[in-house]
Amino acid sequence: MNNQNTYVAIMAGGIGSRFWPASRTARPKQFLDILGVGKSLIRLTFERFLNLCPAENIFIVTNKQYAGLVKEHLPELSDNQILTEPSRNNTAPCVAYTAFKLQALNPEANLVVAPSDHIILQEQKFVHTLESALAFTAENDALVTLGIQPSRPDTGYGYIEVGSGKAEVGSGKAEVGSGKAEVGSRKAEGGSGKAEVGENGVAVSVSPVQKVAAFREKPDLATAEQYLASGNYLWNAGIFIWRTQSLLKAYQQHAHEIHRILAAGASKYNTPEEQAFIDEAYPTTPSISVDYAIMENADNVYTIPSEFGWSDLGTWASLHAESDKDEAGNVLQGAVMAYGVKDSLVRLPKGKLAVLGGLDGYIVVDEGDVLLVWPKSREQEIKKITGEIEDKSYL
Amino acid sequence: MNNQNTYVAIMAGGIGSRFWPASRTARPKQFLDILGVGKSLIRLTFERFLNLCPAENIFIVTNKQYAGLVKEHLPELSDNQILTEPSRNNTAPCVAYTAFKLQALNPEANLVVAPSDHIILQEQKFVHTLESALAFTAENDALVTLGIQPSRPDTGYGYIEVGSGKAEVGSGKAEVGSGKAEVGSRKAEGGSGKAEVGENGVAVSVSPVQKVAAFREKPDLATAEQYLASGNYLWNAGIFIWRTQSLLKAYQQHAHEIHRILAAGASKYNTPEEQAFIDEAYPTTPSISVDYAIMENADNVYTIPSEFGWSDLGTWASLHAESDKDEAGNVLQGAVMAYGVKDSLVRLPKGKLAVLGGLDGYIVVDEGDVLLVWPKSREQEIKKITGEIEDKSYL
Repeated sequence: MNNQNTYVAIMAGGIGSRFWPASRTARPKQFLDILGVGKSLIRLTFERFLNLCPAENIFIVTNKQYAGLVKEHLPELSDNQILTEPSRNNTAPCVAYTAFKLQALNPEANLVVAPSDHIILQEQKFVHTLESALAFTAENDALVTLGIQPSRPDTGYGYIEVGSGKAEVGSGKAEVGSGKAEVGSRKAEGGSGKAEVGENGVAVSVSPVQKVAAFREKPDLATAEQYLASGNYLWNAGIFIWRTQSLLKAYQQHAHEIHRILAAGASKYNTPEEQAFIDEAYPTTPSISVDYAIMENADNVYTIPSEFGWSDLGTWASLHAESDKDEAGNVLQGAVMAYGVKDSLVRLPKGKLAVLGGLDGYIVVDEGDVLLVWPKSREQEIKKITGEIEDKSYL
Repeated sequence: MNNQNTYVAIMAGGIGSRFWPASRTARPKQFLDILGVGKSLIRLTFERFLNLCPAENIFIVTNKQYAGLVKEHLPELSDNQILTEPSRNNTAPCVAYTAFKLQALNPEANLVVAPSDHIILQEQKFVHTLESALAFTAENDALVTLGIQPSRPDTGYGYIEVGSGKAEVGSGKAEVGSGKAEVGSRKAEGGSGKAEVGENGVAVSVSPVQKVAAFREKPDLATAEQYLASGNYLWNAGIFIWRTQSLLKAYQQHAHEIHRILAAGASKYNTPEEQAFIDEAYPTTPSISVDYAIMENADNVYTIPSEFGWSDLGTWASLHAESDKDEAGNVLQGAVMAYGVKDSLVRLPKGKLAVLGGLDGYIVVDEGDVLLVWPKSREQEIKKITGEIEDKSYL
C-alpha cells in the first residue's frame, strides 16, 4: 500500500453539547482535555493518526468559529490543512468538500474520515484495522465504514447489519442474515481476501471486510437486545475509509446537488480562491448526513467488524464507564477529597479543591461559571435543562 | 437613661472556621454576606446597634489581621474606634482592653458587648431588651448577660440557669429552681423592677432582669432535654451589658492579672501611645474567656430571658434552619437551577450558575478555590476534614 496516498480527515466541527458545562459553544468537547490526561481529544486523535500517515497528510474539517482553536491545539498544521465550514450543513457537504480538495491534491487519495472526539484504547489494533480497510479501498471501488462489535444493547447508536445483503429496509423487525453470519471471522465476504503485511512489518490478518446489508436507526431496547443476540449487528462509529474517486462517484450518483455545487470550485481547491468559493457555495448545499445521503443508498458499502477499545465518549456517563476508576468506582479529575462518594465522576479546574461527601452515582463538574452536580442515571435530562437556561452565555 | 453614656463593643476577631469554605482565615464569617442579603454580618450588626447609640459610640474589637477588613466594611468608623488585638488571647483580655479604653473616654460608660456574627430577626425587641439591661446596669453594680429562651434541646450552647441562686455547680444533674421559676415573667427577681419608657417613646416592660444561679457547660442531649423541660435554663448568647466601672471592679476581683497588665496603660488609652502599649502588653495576658474569668465567679451576675429571633449562625445547618426556605425546603443563594433538590443550602459566587439534581439535605458551597458538597447531617465532620487539607492556602 502506498502510504503517500493515505490521507486522514478529522471532523472537528461539532459542539458536543452533552459535555456541558465542560463543553461550551465557544469551546466544544474536542478541544477539551476531557480525559484529564493533559491533552485535548483532538490532539489525541491527531497523534493517533500519525501512526498511519505523516502530519502533512492529516486535514481537519471544522466550523469557521473553531479555526483558531484548531491551530492552537495542532500548531504543526499549515493553513491549507484546516478546512473551515462557513455554515453547519451536517456531514455530507463537509465530507464532499474534503473529497474534492484532496482529489485536487492527489487523484489517488485514499482517505480515512474520522471524528475528532472519540477515544480508542488499543491504538495498534485500530491502525491495523485502518490499514486493512485502506488496502481494500485502494483496490476496490468501495465505501467502508468501521463497525464496532457491540458489548451491550446500546440504544444510543445506529447499527450496521451485515449478512446476506438482503436487508428489509425500514422494517422494525430484527432480522438474521442468511445462514450464520461470520461477524468478526477472518473470512472476507465480498472483500479482497488478500493477506498482507502492514507498513510497520507487523503481519495483519486476512482482510475481514464484509458487505453491509443495511443501516439501522437507533433501536429501542428490545430491538437492541435482539441485535446483540443475533451477532449480525455492529455499531456505526462514523469512521469511514474510501478513495476520493469512489466517494465522488457516489456523490454524483446519490447526492447530485452537493456534488454539483462543490464541483464548481474544482479549479479553486488548494488555491488562494478556495475559501472565498467555499464561503459562498457551501451554505447553499443541502444539510444532510453522509450516512443518509451516501451510505444508505450506495450498494458498494462495506464494513470491518472491529474491536479496539472504542468509545465515542458521547456523555459524562460513558466517560465514567470508559475511564479507570478508583476502588470506590470514582473517576476523580482534579484535587478531590471524597468521603463516602461512590460510582461518581468529578472534574475540577486546576487549583480548585473539592470536598465531597456521600454522593452515589453523581457527575460533579465545576467549569468556569457553571457548576453541575447531577445524578449520572439522569444524564439524559441535562440537554433539556440547558435548553431552559435563559442566559445563553452559560452554554 | 443617658444615651450619651451608652457604648457598644462589637467583637470581631473570630475566624468562624465552621463556615468553611466560605469563611477563610483571611476572611472570616463576620466579613461575609453569609445570608445572601448584600451585607456582611458585621455590617448588619453595626447597623442594628445604630438603633441604640450613635455611630461614634460603637467600637470594634478585632484581630490586627482584620483591621483593614473592618475599615472596608464600616468606613464610617474612625481609627480610634477599632481596637486591634496583637494576639488571640480569648475574650477576657479583649473585653478588659475595651473596658479600660472606654473608661478612659467616659467614666460613666455603660456598655453592650456583642458578637459581630449573629443574626437577630426582631430588631426592635432586641433594642428594647438592651435598653432594659442598660437601665439596670446604669443604676446597679451588675453584670448582665442576655439569656435566649431555648426552643430546642440544643447541645451546642452553654446554658444559664436562673432560679434560687443555690446552684449545684459542677453537678451533672439538672435542677429546678426554688419553687416555680418565672422565666420570662415580668416579675424581676433581684432586678430594679422599675417601669420605664424607652428612648423612642415606646413603653417597655417592667425590667425582667433575673439573678443568674449558675452557668452550665454545653450539655449532653438528655441534660439539654431536662433543661428545656424545666424552664429554668437559657442559652448563653455572649451578649453582655455592664458599666465599665462595674466590669473593671470585677476584673480586679476575679481576673487580677489581666487587670494589672492592662491598667498599666491607663494614661495611654485613646492616645497615640495606645497601640504600642497594647502590642507589648496584650500578648502577656492570660488567655481565658470572659465567662470563665468573670461571669462564673462574680456574684452580681444577672440575665434577661430574651426572645428576639436570635441565632449565632454557628454552622451551615443553623444558617439553613434560620433562613427563609422555598417550598422544597431549600435556601438558594445565587443562580441555582435545582431539580429534585430538597432541604439543602446552596451558596454560589456572583456570576456562577449551578445545575443541581437529586440532592437531599445537602450543603453546596462554591467559594473561590474550594467547592464543598456535603450532607447537612454530617456537618460536624467538616472541621476534621479541613484539618486533613495539606495545602493550608485553602483554609
